[in-house]
Amino acid sequence: MKPIKVGLLGIGTVGSGTFNVLKRNQEEITRRAGRSIQITMVADLNTERARELTNGECEVVNDANLVVNHPDIDIVIELIGGYGIARDLVMKAIANGKHVVTANKALLATHGNEIFKAAQEKGVMVAFEAAVAGGIPIIKALREGLTANRIQWLAGIINGTTNFILSEMRDKGLDFDVVLKEAQRLGYAEADPTFDIEGVDAAHKATIMSAIAFGIPVQFDKAHVEGITKLQATDIRYAEQLGYRIKLLGIAKRTPQGIELRVHPTLIPAKRLIANVEGAMNAVLVHGDAVGATLYYGKGAGSEPTASAVIADLVDITRLATADPEHRVPHLAFQPDSMNDTPILPMSEVTTSYYLRMQVADQPGVLADITRILADSTISIDAMLQKEPEEGEPRADIIILTHQTQEKNVVAAIAKIEALSTVVGQVTKIRLEQLS
Amino acid sequence: MKPIKVGLLGIGTVGSGTFNVLKRNQEEITRRAGRSIQITMVADLNTERARELTNGECEVVNDANLVVNHPDIDIVIELIGGYGIARDLVMKAIANGKHVVTANKALLATHGNEIFKAAQEKGVMVAFEAAVAGGIPIIKALREGLTANRIQWLAGIINGTTNFILSEMRDKGLDFDVVLKEAQRLGYAEADPTFDIEGVDAAHKATIMSAIAFGIPVQFDKAHVEGITKLQATDIRYAEQLGYRIKLLGIAKRTPQGIELRVHPTLIPAKRLIANVEGAMNAVLVHGDAVGATLYYGKGAGSEPTASAVIADLVDITRLATADPEHRVPHLAFQPDSMNDTPILPMSEVTTSYYLRMQVADQPGVLADITRILADSTISIDAMLQKEPEEGEPRADIIILTHQTQEKNVVAAIAKIEALSTVVGQVTKIRLEQLS
Repeated sequence: MKPIKVGLLGIGTVGSGTFNVLKRNQEEITRRAGRSIQITMVADLNTERARELTNGECEVVNDANLVVNHPDIDIVIELIGGYGIARDLVMKAIANGKHVVTANKALLATHGNEIFKAAQEKGVMVAFEAAVAGGIPIIKALREGLTANRIQWLAGIINGTTNFILSEMRDKGLDFDVVLKEAQRLGYAEADPTFDIEGVDAAHKATIMSAIAFGIPVQFDKAHVEGITKLQATDIRYAEQLGYRIKLLGIAKRTPQGIELRVHPTLIPAKRLIANVEGAMNAVLVHGDAVGATLYYGKGAGSEPTASAVIADLVDITRLATADPEHRVPHLAFQPDSMNDTPILPMSEVTTSYYLRMQVADQPGVLADITRILADSTISIDAMLQKEPEEGEPRADIIILTHQTQEKNVVAAIAKIEALSTVVGQVTKIRLEQLS
Repeated sequence: MKPIKVGLLGIGTVGSGTFNVLKRNQEEITRRAGRSIQITMVADLNTERARELTNGECEVVNDANLVVNHPDIDIVIELIGGYGIARDLVMKAIANGKHVVTANKALLATHGNEIFKAAQEKGVMVAFEAAVAGGIPIIKALREGLTANRIQWLAGIINGTTNFILSEMRDKGLDFDVVLKEAQRLGYAEADPTFDIEGVDAAHKATIMSAIAFGIPVQFDKAHVEGITKLQATDIRYAEQLGYRIKLLGIAKRTPQGIELRVHPTLIPAKRLIANVEGAMNAVLVHGDAVGATLYYGKGAGSEPTASAVIADLVDITRLATADPEHRVPHLAFQPDSMNDTPILPMSEVTTSYYLRMQVADQPGVLADITRILADSTISIDAMLQKEPEEGEPRADIIILTHQTQEKNVVAAIAKIEALSTVVGQVTKIRLEQLS
């Protein structure tokens, strides 16, 4: 059979990984796909480097339009990133009747609805396994492996940079700023780490997973996004003493009132398997009504792990290209005419548990005031830890773990607690999930 | 679009789960699949119970032939089990041009080649996600999610009964027989638990995974099968002291000499995520050259978890039914004309590490004799633990962890060690894998 011809846009870390793996494992991949898959064109602004990386084995151009417009190209791989040029090129490729593979979570989380609609109308596929959790086939698991289930919730460690930082903060008892610098030195964090440490990258990925899990459009603008920059080593230590680990989780949950879509630091029981996912590794826990809990673990970034997902998409498209478009796997798991408009809840209406830490004057009656405020807000206490003040220190730390309650209740209660004259400064609030 | 009509053979635990989940989640499943999937016929010897379970919502017959021969049935689900009748019915269904979904690992591990060949010739699909690790979509991950990779090895906790027993033996320090009885009482082990505790069930599943991972035919007869019946609480305790857990693993590994396919109790480092998979849960660790290590975790058995996999297959078939048969996902991941004949190695040629425990007389020179024998067999020692004998006890336990070596070397060295007059009784040998 004729080889499938692929055009690659952007030959950076993932692009060169894709080129190399496809070449190294060509024989096995062909035996699986039933056809040879060949990258025949590469577009990159740095044509010299691109020629070097591809060894003169394919045509190198500096204008990506030449690839998306080329009549011989069957599949375009978009690895440029960002929302601007990448979006134009993906839309042009679709308009030209080409299938697209992309690792661009930012693009899909913000413009996915438009892109999938165009692809649907044109009868082409847009595949994006590499956009979420790198080499872990989580899109496939959610979209095909768990189709029997009403998915109830998912929670993922889906940003390796922040998980590396959190693991180091915990292991070494260091503060965020110190560990961030180390992560940058080691290449685990970028020079501008904003998207990672502020939770934006994780929110892009959680947004994509929420759409697939619940059959709703991608709605990144509705996601609650909170990073790890304010997290203190103190809280990691207290969490540990209470039997919890702190992880940056991307959470999507179905509730009778609507869908929760949120990224924030989260206390989770240390005994859960996902709590033991360390360093730059990723893992996603998915809970379906029939299957119960399933977990998917692996490398969430890097050249060849991400290339693994890109190439799996190439093979899928190669296999499915002849399927009647209506019988292919829908982009967002549900048929386009069967999407839901279930609303995404504002953060104030989200229900979860909380870790609260406050500094109080070491004098009688303080605890009574605090617990009274919580009781009045119908917030019940699950556990409490009061640290004796150090010798000569007039203040004590109180840590409270609450049972489930609505975010707005906690916010209101915190305002009242902070207004107490015996409470010093602000109350630290970190959400807590049992994941059971 | 016309509903897909499904005939169910056997409505026991998994069958009733499949019926119930398909009914409960009908709306979501239809929105995913693009067509309604309906069980319209059920065959079971106990027609009365079958009628009760299905609420008169579908035709109940006691002769499965009526289902596989019925012109209206598109897909047959085989949940009878065993090799005899099940095989005949699956072959008849295929001959009648029906797609088949089965959870029958015993059947596929022993007759899979013949079944897949017949399906290929007839242009129908035989799907079997439920045959390995219950609700975990591991077949899909191996066959579709990791197609970019040269898979190097996989190792799985793929039998819930034995993992439950091992977890209990470790937690409570109890011996195998005691825990088995408890497992039977709790329903985690069957009245005749032979297939589980002797490793046969795990070997069926490992055989199926080895075929998909390496593109070889299923060859259950070549698998090394060893269960947990001889495992002693003592060894679990010593392993713990050395930083290891003992799990029954199904292992498939590619080596330059051939493929290793083996099921046996295995020491694995306690810090590995898979070492912390407890109770009846399953997990499979897969190592690919591009993606590195990935792990898949979930319930490996039970009514609805297994039904989750059965229904995912129904949806896949519904979606792929219109695909040109040559472009569907091949049954064993590789195109039928591209299978390998790489040999499966006999156990004597397998390379792994070992835990050796021996009882020795508490007198000088014993250790020198033992380490000399190992050195002469070019077996190098990774760690050693010598337990001081109890007061008045003339014998001491010596535990040795070896580096990697061939099984036949170890077997020969053990024979020599056992021949020493200072060594009492037999040497206990348990294999050890770093899984790194």
